[in-house]
This record gives sequence, C-alpha cells and structure tokens, in this order.
Amino acid sequence: MLTCTGFAAQTADSPLEKFTFNRRDVGENDVQIEILFCGVCHSDLHTARNEWRDSVFPVIPGHEIVGRVTSVGSGVTNFKPGDKVGVGCLVDSCQTCASCNEGLEQYCDNGFTLTYNSPEKVIGGRTFGGYSDQIVVDKGFVLRIPEGMDLAATAPLLCAGITTYSPLRHWKAGPGKKVGIIGLGGLGHMGVKLAHAMGAYTVLFTTSPSKVADGKRLGADEVVISKDAEEMAKHANSFDLFIDTVAANHDLSPYFALLKREGTMVQVGAPEHPMPIAAFDLIFKRRNFAGSLIGGIPETQEMLDFCAKHGITSDVEIIPIQKVNEAYERMLKSDVKYRFSIDMASLKTAA
Amino acid sequence: MLTCTGFAAQTADSPLEKFTFNRRDVGENDVQIEILFCGVCHSDLHTARNEWRDSVFPVIPGHEIVGRVTSVGSGVTNFKPGDKVGVGCLVDSCQTCASCNEGLEQYCDNGFTLTYNSPEKVIGGRTFGGYSDQIVVDKGFVLRIPEGMDLAATAPLLCAGITTYSPLRHWKAGPGKKVGIIGLGGLGHMGVKLAHAMGAYTVLFTTSPSKVADGKRLGADEVVISKDAEEMAKHANSFDLFIDTVAANHDLSPYFALLKREGTMVQVGAPEHPMPIAAFDLIFKRRNFAGSLIGGIPETQEMLDFCAKHGITSDVEIIPIQKVNEAYERMLKSDVKYRFSIDMASLKTAA
Repeated sequence: MLTCTGFAAQTADSPLEKFTFNRRDVGENDVQIEILFCGVCHSDLHTARNEWRDSVFPVIPGHEIVGRVTSVGSGVTNFKPGDKVGVGCLVDSCQTCASCNEGLEQYCDNGFTLTYNSPEKVIGGRTFGGYSDQIVVDKGFVLRIPEGMDLAATAPLLCAGITTYSPLRHWKAGPGKKVGIIGLGGLGHMGVKLAHAMGAYTVLFTTSPSKVADGKRLGADEVVISKDAEEMAKHANSFDLFIDTVAANHDLSPYFALLKREGTMVQVGAPEHPMPIAAFDLIFKRRNFAGSLIGGIPETQEMLDFCAKHGITSDVEIIPIQKVNEAYERMLKSDVKYRFSIDMASLKTAA
Repeated sequence: MLTCTGFAAQTADSPLEKFTFNRRDVGENDVQIEILFCGVCHSDLHTARNEWRDSVFPVIPGHEIVGRVTSVGSGVTNFKPGDKVGVGCLVDSCQTCASCNEGLEQYCDNGFTLTYNSPEKVIGGRTFGGYSDQIVVDKGFVLRIPEGMDLAATAPLLCAGITTYSPLRHWKAGPGKKVGIIGLGGLGHMGVKLAHAMGAYTVLFTTSPSKVADGKRLGADEVVISKDAEEMAKHANSFDLFIDTVAANHDLSPYFALLKREGTMVQVGAPEHPMPIAAFDLIFKRRNFAGSLIGGIPETQEMLDFCAKHGITSDVEIIPIQKVNEAYERMLKSDVKYRFSIDMASLKTAA
C-alpha cells in the first residue's frame, strides 16, 4: 500500500483538514501520478457536505486532476514516468458493456467508479480524490495533457470542460447553429469558450449585468440579462441548443420559449429538487429537454486536444490547499472567476 | 354565409346544446363537407369548460371529423362532391413559413388556425368544430379517407391517431425497437395499435389490471401494471421510446428509469400543471424528455393510408349528439372503450 497525504472531510459538518491515508500499490495496468493541480468543482462541496446523501466519510474530493506520471505497471505501454497527464471524474468502469465499448464510460451499464466516494475495487473502502499528493489510476482512465498547456488552468477541463464539451458535440454545436449557455460560472465560462471555438453563434444568459463584459471577452457573441423579459423576447424561437449550467433550481420556461422547433435544452447542472416542466413548452415546438453527464474517456482526450489546438483553458484562481475551505464559501457566493485550482505543492507545507 | 346547426357550449358551466350559427361561404380554395361522424376528444371537454382558460364562447368542439364533400371552390381540383374526407385539429396555417413548407403545419411559426376556438380568418369571430352538420375548410387541410374504411371508427384517427403516429415515426419506432405506451385511453389504444403495426416491441403501461387482456388484444406484446414496482424494475434501461398519453399529472421518474441511454419520453397528453422532472433521471443516461403535437397534413394523410393498409381504426362507441354531455362525464371516468364517435345524422332529430 502507498501512504498518501490529502485533505479530507471527516464528517458532513467538518472543514477539510490534512489526512494520511492508503492507496493501492501500482498494479499491472495502473499509472501512479504525482498530483500537481486539482480544480475545485461544486460536486466536491456537495460530497464533502453530504448534500447528495451518499457520502461515506472520510471524503477526499477532487476530480479535476493534472499531474506527472511517477511509475507505471508492467502492462502499461502508453504512459511513462514524466508524462503530463490528467484524471477526471472517473477512474474505472466495467469496460465490457455496450456503453464502455463505445467509449461512453460515463454511461456504463454496470456502474462506473468515481474518482472519489465510490467503492475502491482493489483494496476496498472508498476512492479518494485529487486533493492529495498522488493517485493510482487504471491506464484506461488516464488522459494525456498536450504539450504547452498551462497545467493549473487545464485541471478544470477534466470536469467543467468535458461536461460542456460533450453536449455541445452530441447536439452538434457548430457553424450556423445558435447556442445559449445559461449561467457564467465554472461550467458556463467553459461552455462559452467551447461553443465559440466550435463556431456556433454563442449567447450567454446571466442574471448579472456585471458579467456582460466578461461574457464577451470569453467569446460570447451576445450576452442577455435573463431577467429582462424584453431582451429575452427578441430571441424567441431562435436557439438550436441550450446548455443549462445552473445547479440552483430556476424556471426553465422562459428559455424553452427561445428554442426553435426541435431545439434541445440540456441540463448539466444538477439542481437538488425536480424542475417543474410545462408540457406545452415542449409540445408546441417538438422541443427536447435532455441531460448530459461529463464525457467518456475518448471524448475527454478529444476535448483536451481541441482545447490545445484552440488555445483554450479555464480561467483560474490558483490557491494553496490551506485555502480550500475558504474557497468553498467563496464558490457558494459565486466569488471566483471562474474556477479555483489548487496548487498541490502547498500540501507539503500544510499543517 | 351558410346557416349551420351544431351543439355548442354557451358558457364554461353550461351543457352543450343545439345552436344555429354561420360559416363562411365556399371560397375559391374551400371544400364544403357534410359531417357524418365526429370523434370526442378530451380537448373538446377542456375547451367547452374553459379549462385551458382561452375559450371564447360559444364553443362548438370537435376535431375528429369525417364526412362527404358537398361542393368545392373553383380553385379546388383534388376533391369533388361525394369524396369521403377528413378534417383534424387544423383548418389553416400561414402556409409560408419554414414549418409549413416542410408540411409541419402543426408547428407553424406564425400560428395555425385550430378547427375550433381559433380566430376565423374570413368572416371573423371564432372557428366552430365538428359537432355540427357541415364545415367549410381550405383544401390544403382536407384529408382523403381511403376506400373501405369504417367512417365512424376512422374519425378518431384525425386527432388520437395522428397524435400518436407522429412521435412514433419521428422517434423511429419500428422493428428492433422497444416502445412503451403509457395509458390506455383514446390516445393510448391508438398508440398500441400503431406501434405494433410499425413492428416495434410494444409494451402497454396501465394502472388497471382489468386492462391487461384488452391491451394484448390491441397489439401489446406485454402489459405492465405500472404500480407494480417489481414488474417495472424488470424493464430497467430497456426502452427506446415512451409515448406518455396520460393527461393527468403523474410521476414520470419510474418511467425514466426504464429508458435506455439516449431514450426518449414523449409527452402527448397535456397535464394541467408542470411536471417535476429530476435532472438526474436525464443526466445519467443522456435521456430525453420531449413533446409532440398532432401532426402535419402530409403526415396525417400518410397515417390514414398506413391505417388503411394495416386494417387499423379506432375502437369506438357510436353515440347520437344528444348523448354528448353524458359522454363527457363518462370520459372523465375513463368509461369508454376507447373513443366516442358521434353519428351526426342524429343532429337532424335533436331538439
């Protein structure tokens, strides 16, 4: 077993604190990674505080991991020590079902293994995430970071990036398409950058007039203040696709009115309570309401390569691990532009 | 103007009673039709009782119309007196927008004209529906009834038939697909017949054990009692498509769990209140929730031809117009197998 150090929540009410724990030894098909940066995702907070009611403590969050390979098992030929690599939300899946065979491990029929708070298949207990010094991951779930990318700003691509990239691709965002991104946070700012880079006419919807300039800087062709009914009405029946990144419950009806016939609203945030959907909003234009979950491993690699080609990374504020609890409080107030990225070197000096 | 006779609701609270009213004279592109049968749709009741809060009284419902052409305008070459024809939910649309040009008049960008309770474009006032002796309709909205079809049992195809046929076609029901029909009423019994005839593996979901035998007679390969959690669980992640015909609010979550990855739940009934949809039900399998509205004119003709070829009509109970108020009460109790069809000859003897 490997002795590791990380930051863990011991209960739903306690702050994250330094914690020593074990990971499995490097198996035949495993890659051992020294973690350099880890993004801070809202899911980390949900799990640390047991808001989805499925947390098993202690919880070490973190699934936006970028690091350096330190060793590989005898069966690993595609990675070698020194390689820059990433790990996202998944560290394993059945690897045999139809979804896995199609490279859609995120929809594994037999249940995937999340990077944290999932059963650990080899040594038992739970998986521990990226708020730690190292991680051991099956070679099939390790991503290659293209040369020249800023590592701190690349980390959030592993969740926020792929979560918006995958539905944009699946529902064919591109030239000639009008795409709306709802919400300008960690996911939303990636959605704007990616939809723009794909060539779609990209419109950001936000409740904050203060975000208009930033939305345009990030690549939005237009920014609409969603509380302004008149401005909203100008876009009636004109959108091919919406990516709704807002995790708080909100009324989707005004957005459905902006979708074209057969347009699709994709939910990628996960509001705590069910969303009330009026049948008429869907029926009158044969509209769709869909969901999308992160992305599979091949598509995550495609996304990283796409981002490298287009010079896209996340806008990050780099913090030491000692500030992670404060970062959670700021994240709840949307006081971050647009993602915290933890410099894991700070772990060495943490008390 | 033509003097016509029908059955109208004068207020939201009053029963339908005999009523004399005017229709426009037969214009250049119009077809005048003697109405022989008219199906009774739940929308008729919603409108007669102003349950959708947009009724303008008096209301003459009825949009499942079958009749015989009695005269045509000078610009009409495709119909002649004596032809057996049908009229569904639409009697006009802009006929110029992209949707109309694609034969999707039901999604007309500029607003269609419903068969009843819509503005009448030529003489003003409102359109009056098929609970009447005759109707005058633009030639573009008249359907041809194939030879040999039972007219009373064909009438409901014009709404209940096309409303289920269109989503089954759009979402590609057919051999190798597993299709669920939720609810066995006017729409549901057509959904079962049509999905079966298209070659899909067809499963009826009903709350009533008393409907199992009838579901199988209509063409269902299986009938599932939706309250039986164990029986439901056997079908987890296996359906390509659901057509939800239930107009009362009900919990869709147990059905989403039965949809495959990328499967679609299509709402064709229109519950009064918004439906609570849990994001996780969609996100974890990239599932879709969609709506579908009747069908366009070309597809309605295709549906009638399909039904003629496959020997499909609606199961009807023929009633005289004098029993329409009683029929509404029975419809509310689901006491009809599966559609009332009014024999309009009875209007001549109505008081």
